[in-house]
Amino acid sequence: MSEWKTFYAHIRDKKKIYVLIHEKPDGDCLGTALGLSLFLKELGYEAAILHPAPIPSVYTFLPGQQHLKLWKDVLPAHALYVCVDCADWERTGYPMPENPYVINIDHHVSNVYYGNLNLVETSAAATGEIVYKMLKSSGIVIDPEVATCLYVALITDTGSFSYSNTTAESLKIGSELVMMGANIDTIRQNLYEKRPFAELLIVKLSLNNLFLAANGKIIAAAISYEEMRAYDLLDADTDGLISMLRAVEGVEVALLLKEFTPGQIKVSLRSKLTCDVNLLAQKFGGGGHPRAAGFVTSGKINEVRDAVIKLIENTF
Amino acid sequence: MSEWKTFYAHIRDKKKIYVLIHEKPDGDCLGTALGLSLFLKELGYEAAILHPAPIPSVYTFLPGQQHLKLWKDVLPAHALYVCVDCADWERTGYPMPENPYVINIDHHVSNVYYGNLNLVETSAAATGEIVYKMLKSSGIVIDPEVATCLYVALITDTGSFSYSNTTAESLKIGSELVMMGANIDTIRQNLYEKRPFAELLIVKLSLNNLFLAANGKIIAAAISYEEMRAYDLLDADTDGLISMLRAVEGVEVALLLKEFTPGQIKVSLRSKLTCDVNLLAQKFGGGGHPRAAGFVTSGKINEVRDAVIKLIENTF
Repeated sequence: MSEWKTFYAHIRDKKKIYVLIHEKPDGDCLGTALGLSLFLKELGYEAAILHPAPIPSVYTFLPGQQHLKLWKDVLPAHALYVCVDCADWERTGYPMPENPYVINIDHHVSNVYYGNLNLVETSAAATGEIVYKMLKSSGIVIDPEVATCLYVALITDTGSFSYSNTTAESLKIGSELVMMGANIDTIRQNLYEKRPFAELLIVKLSLNNLFLAANGKIIAAAISYEEMRAYDLLDADTDGLISMLRAVEGVEVALLLKEFTPGQIKVSLRSKLTCDVNLLAQKFGGGGHPRAAGFVTSGKINEVRDAVIKLIENTF
Repeated sequence: MSEWKTFYAHIRDKKKIYVLIHEKPDGDCLGTALGLSLFLKELGYEAAILHPAPIPSVYTFLPGQQHLKLWKDVLPAHALYVCVDCADWERTGYPMPENPYVINIDHHVSNVYYGNLNLVETSAAATGEIVYKMLKSSGIVIDPEVATCLYVALITDTGSFSYSNTTAESLKIGSELVMMGANIDTIRQNLYEKRPFAELLIVKLSLNNLFLAANGKIIAAAISYEEMRAYDLLDADTDGLISMLRAVEGVEVALLLKEFTPGQIKVSLRSKLTCDVNLLAQKFGGGGHPRAAGFVTSGKINEVRDAVIKLIENTF
């Protein structure tokens, strides 16, 4: 399915390729889009990653930034779009343009196969894995810049090969990308060694207000609007915090509630073994994976917390 | 160097093999010793891991526990000893027995080549890597239990493939061990998902007492004797804390001071790029690696902190 020849058959007659990413792009989305764009550029294609909102500055160290175009207009009609890591068209953040030709590359189980070509592999730990296998099957050399981008895709979605989606295949691909010149020193320094000091402060603050339920099987932390504003944090800056909460012995579900605008609460959910937090998040119009999901709702932070905890308790 | 035939030539005529580990053994030390013992047992050898003090309970999920023998007596004379992950004999915690035959398997740069056979590879990310390559070269099948032990050795010393010692080789070995049946679900659940709640409390406490110096290039946290006692933490339980401190943007050196007995301070040091904390620790009779080292000294916790910070500032 994800062979280069299938993909190539769909792009062969084109000159210009627009790559679309999802809102609040993560390392898998951006690394894959940048790696693919760099590769296509080397083959003589004109590749541009169109994005409606600025991308998180933590990823500006990645090669291929020249392909990123902050594009707020209507998307060009009759063009070729490669959507990366997007389960449906809406995730791109753009209204559908006139008569698009869509290649959909993704690994989410919730993907709705909206493309003219769908390269969807739900068993892949990252969308970067799918693109890596595709590029490798082309026989064309993957250069160190492309390898660096794809390595970032891989390690951000697998928690540096520590999450449950890690496979022998992910590790093998990681090894091959390092052999191809992925700059793991630069990656480490930028992803793991430039954490904002405010992240420590928010951890401190959250640990002062921990909430335990169901005999310690549920743990919750909450950040109010005033605190969110005071610390000016990005979404990704609280990933470490919820992982710490989930890691505690006896905890099955960890919740992090962030009031990002007054009365609007973003709820992140992580579970260990039994609780399907994707199903839970869907009840609030959100979604994700069984072990990691989230949603946005309105209400008072403590009330939202108690309502979610009650639902979780019902699943035990 | 680490070929099976070299090792086998030294054990061939023996029946009983004593494996020695170091004090306060970590995942690399224990995973390697257990993996090797299980492998030797399958070949008909009698293998026992002698250890003078109880091992951390976090590793009791590892296969091969039946080979661990809490042994407080003098070591048997004229016996074959395989020392794992020990830079010198003293690290085993035992006085040298009469006429021992010693095989020294280690990856520390500080190794003093004290064995009759020295399988020392300082380029290996973990001692587990050396033993893996050795066992693989035997051609004998590595079973899932042995693979599980060696995978733990690998990921604990590389921080799940995130530290600077990670190589394409480490990732390739990781991939092969998963193919051989390393139980990464059990490993993840035991290593990453059973963290003591007290660890969160100690993080909270330390974050309330952060000390910054040299314009944020140095960050320090301290835990007093009373706090150490109150939380009853293992050494490994504060690894996450010092990593969090080191990860902060702008920080070059992170210090964690623990008063484990009144007036006795254990200082852990981590650095990013320029400061050789191994050299620094050596000034206090300690040691380690350029990026991670430690020592024990006596004094008042704040005075020790200030003295170390002054020395670090001199290296900038």
